[in-house]
Amino acid sequence: MSNLLGIDIGGTSVKLGLIKGSGQIQSKLVFPTQTLQSISHFFQVLSQHIEQLLTTTRTDLASLSGIGIGAPGHSTADGEIIGAVNLPFSDKIPIVSFLNDLTGLPVFLLKDAKVAALGEKYWGAAQGMDNFVILMLGTGLGYAAYSEGRIINGQGGLAGEFGHSIIQINGRSCNCGKQGCLETYLSATGLKRTTFELLGQDLQGSPLRQYTFAELNTKIIAELAQQGDTIAQQAFRQTAHYLGIIMANLGEQLGPEGFIISGGLAEAGAILLEPAEKIMNDYLQAVYRDKIKVLRASLPAAEVGILGAGALVMDSIQLQA
Amino acid sequence: MSNLLGIDIGGTSVKLGLIKGSGQIQSKLVFPTQTLQSISHFFQVLSQHIEQLLTTTRTDLASLSGIGIGAPGHSTADGEIIGAVNLPFSDKIPIVSFLNDLTGLPVFLLKDAKVAALGEKYWGAAQGMDNFVILMLGTGLGYAAYSEGRIINGQGGLAGEFGHSIIQINGRSCNCGKQGCLETYLSATGLKRTTFELLGQDLQGSPLRQYTFAELNTKIIAELAQQGDTIAQQAFRQTAHYLGIIMANLGEQLGPEGFIISGGLAEAGAILLEPAEKIMNDYLQAVYRDKIKVLRASLPAAEVGILGAGALVMDSIQLQA
Repeated sequence: MSNLLGIDIGGTSVKLGLIKGSGQIQSKLVFPTQTLQSISHFFQVLSQHIEQLLTTTRTDLASLSGIGIGAPGHSTADGEIIGAVNLPFSDKIPIVSFLNDLTGLPVFLLKDAKVAALGEKYWGAAQGMDNFVILMLGTGLGYAAYSEGRIINGQGGLAGEFGHSIIQINGRSCNCGKQGCLETYLSATGLKRTTFELLGQDLQGSPLRQYTFAELNTKIIAELAQQGDTIAQQAFRQTAHYLGIIMANLGEQLGPEGFIISGGLAEAGAILLEPAEKIMNDYLQAVYRDKIKVLRASLPAAEVGILGAGALVMDSIQLQA
Repeated sequence: MSNLLGIDIGGTSVKLGLIKGSGQIQSKLVFPTQTLQSISHFFQVLSQHIEQLLTTTRTDLASLSGIGIGAPGHSTADGEIIGAVNLPFSDKIPIVSFLNDLTGLPVFLLKDAKVAALGEKYWGAAQGMDNFVILMLGTGLGYAAYSEGRIINGQGGLAGEFGHSIIQINGRSCNCGKQGCLETYLSATGLKRTTFELLGQDLQGSPLRQYTFAELNTKIIAELAQQGDTIAQQAFRQTAHYLGIIMANLGEQLGPEGFIISGGLAEAGAILLEPAEKIMNDYLQAVYRDKIKVLRASLPAAEVGILGAGALVMDSIQLQA
């Protein structure tokens, strides 16, 4: 098996790792994103880290099959990152041509959620599935669909945004300026918002009242729900209802074999996923019922971006062959 | 160009036509669906009509490239129609094997909305588009997505239901037993329901009050809206709002180059589609804005099923090649 270089660009940090073709990360490095001052500064720091990674692992550039990159925003056909609002430097980052010039290797770029989907497909919970959807329930909602053997990319690679899909007309206000976006309900932040709404709806005693909005998180709410706190339980019930409905909607629209759920909210586990799967099946038409798996992602959160970027190289080379 | 046989199976009638490879229907026949008593009766009547069509047009079976079929419900990998609730005979209709045995020709079966999408792709409004979505707004809502050169079919062909996607939690009751399904708002029937709701909300005078629910239709409401009736105008505004939001949701999810809108509701034309396109662009994130066309379907309603079935033959043979 040849080696792959995977790069995971996020709003907090950039991770890069050397991957064996069998899906093991041999070595990785991380550097912070928010201190980068410009695209050229970013490229300079990235180059240094690539060199360091290759030196440390005694890897020859020529032994690499290619470089994969997962990034926020969108990836253009020209290999640029666009619309990545949580990166500190300006828009339109021509990363593919930069790394291609630097290394002479084939370089592939894709939106982060799509890269995570490929990671789960090659080495995680989606192995063996030709049709699946990944839902990444963190601060927001990340989404990618894999259909009949390939990621749905759409015109200019623009397919793959679902967090700002309107699920409730005149619903909750979203950072994006719209109202009723799915991620205002279905995300770790959405669960906190639901909990606070419920705390406002009556004055029933609950340990949840000890927390500020900033302090509260999925773990605290899940533990209290397991200890019998009725507000925490209700918050999970409402969140599972949204997840179940959305999986039924996507199930009928895309005909997936399974949903792969990741992100901070997914760490709540069965308390979220079991009722959501039941609600999904209640909402699905008979012909779809009990045919769609609901699974937690199996790659570690800290590694899925790197591994997925490696899977992207394998997938792209295979599709081109 | 060789000839194609297209068969359009609907709840009211079955249409079949002989198509030239250039997308012209040479001759067609129609027979009613609801008087058919069983699958074998259906197959017998269908066979007679195929023979009649070939005789009338002096066509040799061997001159046909294949037979295409569009049908309600779903098409299985084995070439059976399943889940077609508006056909009078029982479920699981093994139509592909029957016609293949009868004629020796290649036979292809697909869900009706997907067939319509292929018709528009080959000979209608979607020519030249590699990514588009068709929305058929009639009694219900039909949907199909064409992505990077092919129909999204999903696991076992089950992708492609969107009318029962929940758009309003605890919303309008649907025939399917659920609440808040998209087609209860966004369809010809949905427009009537919205109009009746508005007529109940105040007592303002309107010619719309002369009509029973059964008498009312899109044409009447559209004419009154054009004449300045404020309730009719409001009903279109609300319906356009649903259409705009849904196109924004699908636009970000699937990255289409265009939406092709057909069905009775689409015949209202600009009064529906212009505000819907504006609302779509208001809801879309900046990177998607003004990149997605909103077009009326261009194939005649009475022919799209036959032509689409012919396009299915061409598309299937091409994909196999």
